[in-house]
Amino acid sequence: MVSRKMNRDSKKSRGPVDAKLEGLAGRMVQLAAKGKDPAIDIPLRTLSNVNYNAKSRVIEMGSGVQNRSFFNFGQAKRFMQTMLVASKCKDLIDAKKSASIRQIYYMAKHTIKGTSEKTFNDQSESDPILEDLEVATNSLREELHVFADSKGALVGELQFADSGDFIDAAKLGSGGYAIPSIVEPNVIRFKKCKARFVLHVEKGTVWRRFVEDKFWQQHHCLITHGGGQPPRGVRRLLHRLHHELKLPVFVLLDNDPWGYYIHSVIKQGSINLAYESQRMAIPDAKFIGVSSFDYERFKLTDDVKLSLDESDVKRAKQILEYPWFAGKKPWEKEIKKMMSNGFKMEVEAMISKSLAFLTQDYLPHKLKNKSEWLD
Amino acid sequence: MVSRKMNRDSKKSRGPVDAKLEGLAGRMVQLAAKGKDPAIDIPLRTLSNVNYNAKSRVIEMGSGVQNRSFFNFGQAKRFMQTMLVASKCKDLIDAKKSASIRQIYYMAKHTIKGTSEKTFNDQSESDPILEDLEVATNSLREELHVFADSKGALVGELQFADSGDFIDAAKLGSGGYAIPSIVEPNVIRFKKCKARFVLHVEKGTVWRRFVEDKFWQQHHCLITHGGGQPPRGVRRLLHRLHHELKLPVFVLLDNDPWGYYIHSVIKQGSINLAYESQRMAIPDAKFIGVSSFDYERFKLTDDVKLSLDESDVKRAKQILEYPWFAGKKPWEKEIKKMMSNGFKMEVEAMISKSLAFLTQDYLPHKLKNKSEWLD
Repeated sequence: MVSRKMNRDSKKSRGPVDAKLEGLAGRMVQLAAKGKDPAIDIPLRTLSNVNYNAKSRVIEMGSGVQNRSFFNFGQAKRFMQTMLVASKCKDLIDAKKSASIRQIYYMAKHTIKGTSEKTFNDQSESDPILEDLEVATNSLREELHVFADSKGALVGELQFADSGDFIDAAKLGSGGYAIPSIVEPNVIRFKKCKARFVLHVEKGTVWRRFVEDKFWQQHHCLITHGGGQPPRGVRRLLHRLHHELKLPVFVLLDNDPWGYYIHSVIKQGSINLAYESQRMAIPDAKFIGVSSFDYERFKLTDDVKLSLDESDVKRAKQILEYPWFAGKKPWEKEIKKMMSNGFKMEVEAMISKSLAFLTQDYLPHKLKNKSEWLD
Repeated sequence: MVSRKMNRDSKKSRGPVDAKLEGLAGRMVQLAAKGKDPAIDIPLRTLSNVNYNAKSRVIEMGSGVQNRSFFNFGQAKRFMQTMLVASKCKDLIDAKKSASIRQIYYMAKHTIKGTSEKTFNDQSESDPILEDLEVATNSLREELHVFADSKGALVGELQFADSGDFIDAAKLGSGGYAIPSIVEPNVIRFKKCKARFVLHVEKGTVWRRFVEDKFWQQHHCLITHGGGQPPRGVRRLLHRLHHELKLPVFVLLDNDPWGYYIHSVIKQGSINLAYESQRMAIPDAKFIGVSSFDYERFKLTDDVKLSLDESDVKRAKQILEYPWFAGKKPWEKEIKKMMSNGFKMEVEAMISKSLAFLTQDYLPHKLKNKSEWLD
C-alpha cells in the first residue's frame, strides 16, 4: 500500500486549484473508461513521514504515499469520500463561496440511494479526508475554499484591501481587525506598511494591554494575537507579513511548555500540518519572552509563580527531544531552567510589577537586548 | 448576616464609578476613625436572591444583602480583598487604562508584609470579589475598567466611532469588526445606521456564511455573533443597538438546549449576572430558529439529525421549568417537540440542502413569517 515517490516539488505542482481538482476527476474518469481501477496517491500524514529539514529549518513531509483505490474493499468508502469532498470543494470554488469544515461535512453527507448507508457518519470522517485532499492536490485548505473558525486580531500601521474593502489597521479602535481564516492574496492585498516589525502575543487579553498602551504607535509595529495556539489564518498572515513585507516577527508567550510549543509551530510548523510548513512556517521568528531567566533578570516576586505540574514536566522533556529544539544550547538552557525553577509564568503576571511594566519596561528591554532572544 | 434592604434604585445610585469607589473608601475611613467596624453591604448573588420580573421581562436581583465587616474573623480576609480590588479598579480608572480579570488578580496579589500570607492565592478568589464590587457599587465590570477576553464580531450598515477612530462596519472586508469587551458610550459612539434590524447568530462559521452571501447588504441589517454564549461585550452592544438605535434583534441559534439557553440569556439575562440584566437583557429579542418544527417545515432529511443525549433531555426539562419559559405555550411546544423528535439540529446543517439555502431561503422565510418567531 505504501510506496515511495519522488519528493513533490511544490513549486512545480502549484497552480489553480480548480484545474487540479478537474484534473483529478478527469484521471478517475479515464481510468474507469479504460476498465482500470480508479485510484489516487495520498501522501502520508504520519509522524514517520515527517522530517525536520535543518537547512530550511522547517518541518517537512516525507515522500511516503498511500495508494487509495476504488476496487479495494478496505478503501472503497474512503475513495468515494475523497471524490465527494473534492467535488464539494469544486462547487465552492465555482460558486466563489467558502464553507467551514463543518459545513463541508453537511454538504457531503447524504444517504446513498437504495441503501440506509450514509456517505459520512460524522465530521471526524470528513475532516481527515479534507486534509488528504489538501496534501494530494498540494493546496492549502483555504485554496479549497474551506475555512476554520477564526480567532486572533491585528492592529498597527498597515493598510490593506480585504475583499475589496480598504482597511487601515491603525484606525480600528479598540477591537482591531479580526483575522479571518482565509488571508490569501486574492482576499488580502497589502497596500502600505509603516510598521517595522510584528509583535505576536499569545492571548487577546495581553494583546489588548499592548493596544491600550499604544505600543504599536510608539514602536511602529503590528501587534497580533492568535487566541492561544494560532489558527491557520493567523499563521498564514504572519508568514505573508514576514516574507512579503520583510517584517521581523517577535513572539511573546507564556513561560510554559505550551508557550514553547506555540513558538515552535509558528517557527518550524507542526507535525500535523507539515505539508503546509512552506506556506506557514517562519524560521526566523524570534522568541523574546517570557523566559525562565526573566524571574531573576527582572527581580520578579513570588506573586508571578505558577507551580509546574507533572504534565508540564513531561511535556517539557518531550519538547527538548524534538529535533528542532535538540542540540540548541540556548533552548536547552531555557527549558531546563524552567524545570529547575519549578514554576511557570504567564505574560500577564508581569503586571504584578505595575500595569505599565509590560509595555514600558519589559518589552522595550527585550527588543533592545538581542542576547536574550531565543532562536 | 443576611439583612433585607430597600430594593436598590439603580437609576438613583448610578453615577461616575470613580466617585462611588472614593465614597466607599471614604466611608471605611470614617468608620475606622470613629472606632467602628468598617463594613460594606454586598447584595447577594445567589439563586434564592434572583427573581423573574414578569412585567419588565428580565431576571432581576432581589434585595438580599450580606454585611461584610473587617472585625469579623470569617470575613476579614474577604473584606481586605474587596478593598484591594476596589483600589486597583480606582487605579485603572485614574490611569484611563483597563485590565483583564486575570490582570486584576496579578495586580492585587501580593505577600502581606511580615507574613508568608498572600492577598489572593488564586484567580478564583479575585473573580467573585470583582463581581461583589460590581454589584455593591451598582456598576458594570466595564465601568470598573475590567474586561474579559473578547469574542464575537459585527458587520453591516453601521458607522461608529471606537476610541476616536471612525469605523464603517460595512467596509471591514471578510473579518468584520471584532467586538471588544468594553462597548460603553465613552468607547463606542454610534454615528449613522442604515440597518433595519440585527441578526445575531451563534457561531463565527455561521456568521461568515451570512457575510459571504452578502446577506446584510440585501436585507439591510447588522450581523453579529458571540462565539457561542455571547460575552458581556456582545450582549451589551446588542442591548445598545436595540435600545438606542431601536433595532429589532433576531436570534438564530442551534436547535438544542444550549441554543434555547443562549436565547434566554440574551432576552432575560442570566442568573449569574442578574444584577446586569437592566443593561444587558433585550426582552423583545425574537428567536427565529432553528426550531424543532423546521425539520418538517422545510422537508429536511435525516442528514441534519444529531441524536439527543441524556444531558440534553435533562437540560431541556430544566429550561422548561425556568419561570421565563414556563407557561409560555409556544416555547413549551417547541421544547417538547425537540424531545419528541429525539434529535437536535445545528444551523450549519441547513447547508445539507444547499450552500445558499440558509441565506436565500431559510432566513428570508423566517423573517417574513412572524408566526414562526418565538418570544
